[in-house]
Amino acid sequence: MNNFFITLPDNSYPVIIGNNLPIRDILPQYVSGQQILIVTNQTIAPLYLSALQEALTQYQCDTLILPDGENFKNFSSLSLIYDTLVKLNHHRTTTLIALGGGVIGDITGFAASTYQRGVNFIQLPTTLLAQVDASIGGKTAINHPLGKNMIGSFYQPKAVIIDPIFLNTLPERQLRAGFGEIIKYALLQGGDLFDHVLAITGNTELKDIHWEELITWCCQIKGSYVEQDEKENNNRALLNLGHTFAHALETYTQYQCFLHGEAVGIGLYCAALLSQRVGRLDANYSLQISGMLTALKLPNRIPQTIDIQKLYDLFQHDKKMLNNKLRFVLIERPGLCYLDDALEKKDIIDVLMEAVEGD
Amino acid sequence: MNNFFITLPDNSYPVIIGNNLPIRDILPQYVSGQQILIVTNQTIAPLYLSALQEALTQYQCDTLILPDGENFKNFSSLSLIYDTLVKLNHHRTTTLIALGGGVIGDITGFAASTYQRGVNFIQLPTTLLAQVDASIGGKTAINHPLGKNMIGSFYQPKAVIIDPIFLNTLPERQLRAGFGEIIKYALLQGGDLFDHVLAITGNTELKDIHWEELITWCCQIKGSYVEQDEKENNNRALLNLGHTFAHALETYTQYQCFLHGEAVGIGLYCAALLSQRVGRLDANYSLQISGMLTALKLPNRIPQTIDIQKLYDLFQHDKKMLNNKLRFVLIERPGLCYLDDALEKKDIIDVLMEAVEGD
Repeated sequence: MNNFFITLPDNSYPVIIGNNLPIRDILPQYVSGQQILIVTNQTIAPLYLSALQEALTQYQCDTLILPDGENFKNFSSLSLIYDTLVKLNHHRTTTLIALGGGVIGDITGFAASTYQRGVNFIQLPTTLLAQVDASIGGKTAINHPLGKNMIGSFYQPKAVIIDPIFLNTLPERQLRAGFGEIIKYALLQGGDLFDHVLAITGNTELKDIHWEELITWCCQIKGSYVEQDEKENNNRALLNLGHTFAHALETYTQYQCFLHGEAVGIGLYCAALLSQRVGRLDANYSLQISGMLTALKLPNRIPQTIDIQKLYDLFQHDKKMLNNKLRFVLIERPGLCYLDDALEKKDIIDVLMEAVEGD
Repeated sequence: MNNFFITLPDNSYPVIIGNNLPIRDILPQYVSGQQILIVTNQTIAPLYLSALQEALTQYQCDTLILPDGENFKNFSSLSLIYDTLVKLNHHRTTTLIALGGGVIGDITGFAASTYQRGVNFIQLPTTLLAQVDASIGGKTAINHPLGKNMIGSFYQPKAVIIDPIFLNTLPERQLRAGFGEIIKYALLQGGDLFDHVLAITGNTELKDIHWEELITWCCQIKGSYVEQDEKENNNRALLNLGHTFAHALETYTQYQCFLHGEAVGIGLYCAALLSQRVGRLDANYSLQISGMLTALKLPNRIPQTIDIQKLYDLFQHDKKMLNNKLRFVLIERPGLCYLDDALEKKDIIDVLMEAVEGD
């Protein structure tokens, strides 16, 4: 079991990572009152909900099962959470538990941050993407039809409890999508992690991966960015490597086409091409990134059906924009990324065209 | 002009109170970027919106005019704010200005706290109630059909700018309703403020009141509670004197019957009766409170049409509930209020019955 703390001025909390964690003993340490609402989805509920409820019999333990998928990370699902809490008389001392992937974590966290002006919540992520990235750091959100994660809050959980055992039932496509974020961490961190991920993607079967180690590695990197810049006023923005492209692709396709990690994969390749175009990244690295994505059977090209100008227009809703200027995270080399707000529109468009599949 | 600061660990901000404030000079000090969205309502817009826009010509200054009234403090209005911000490409550096009463302040503050995970906002309150109470302290919210202010956040404005000149066009009913909160502060504070408010309610025409002084007094009291306990973990709850009753009455009548300050007036009288019933408040004070409310032509009784058991049931959604127990703010004497979570249901019901009009 690997435990570490995310240490923040107001809300420090543990990240507990291990196989077959004794949830019955761990969870009650982070539940505040006598009431719990478990929020989960239709995929996870039949597999894991009853076991979790059985571990929490000493509480008023209510449940809400949402439909599964990023296209349900919206106002309707949020309203369902509020309605459930109000109707079942949950008070300010209640605890929300997010049992699911990034969608469930984001929406449950946002509900927790706003129900009665803020109640306790715990992250119990079940997908690889949520375990390596989304469950850490307190970003909560729902999507707006015109932009991903446009409505949300910074609101830290009381604890993040990560059990890789959930990955045993995760569909392979979801497992592979998690590597979108893992490769992002490899590019941000460089060094041993980059070499390790490169080795995995080249030679290792997914079933042979030592998840606990890999997840801990990513979570600790994210934790250190969050500790330095909780509200993303500075360097935390680097964690958005590939995400300007990814969010626009997800919004454009109305969350019907790509899993978030898949869109991040394409975004990483676009970020590499853009970094290369402005003369900062050696072309060999772009090839290496493309190779890693391909080895993992992740997409790394923009589908031909996408109108590049319309995709570009969606960048205008990117949350990193500062003084009306787009800011991209670019790569100098693995281990050295930076923010660039002085890019030419032509370079961006050209790179998008270059990234279209079949070119 | 009376200026003072609310000093908080993360977000200190000025409260600027004065007649005919030079808004053109003051506002830009608290605007963060190049974009502004003014949120106001259909009553205020024709009177004050164009003057405010003219003071802000150097910005991209957009406006949103919502329908007027507490029954519009809901998801639909909130969505309109988000839609406007997204469609007009407002970035994380935008500033929202709430130009209106408590409803506009609460909903705009909530939108600001959640748009792109938090943007800048400024309170420009136009009603007496918002000037003495709602604009200070960073409580933002929308209503849920089953309970007032059930969804919201603690999110401090960048500045609160209070000009009593707005009161010149405020309908008399609204002006009187503001005294619901002013009498609350008189009861919390006792001493000179209580004597002053007692004198005003007995002898002074509304038009002769020195608003700047009275507003400053109330704001400073609220500020000191907020400074001690920003997130309402302790004594800030005392500011809810009368509000358990008021919120239930407003929810019951679907915001169609009472202005918030009027409901607070009834709530203060109910709190006095309850304090008296448990032997803590001298009966003369209840009479005095009732007399003040009557002198101001504020309601102080519960309408006969209201089903007392159903009203009591709505208390179950009160945000002060702790460990499944109701908590009321009771009065020992002006200047000494306290929280009581050990009241008998029978006493509460009896007091509600006693407070019904015509008894």
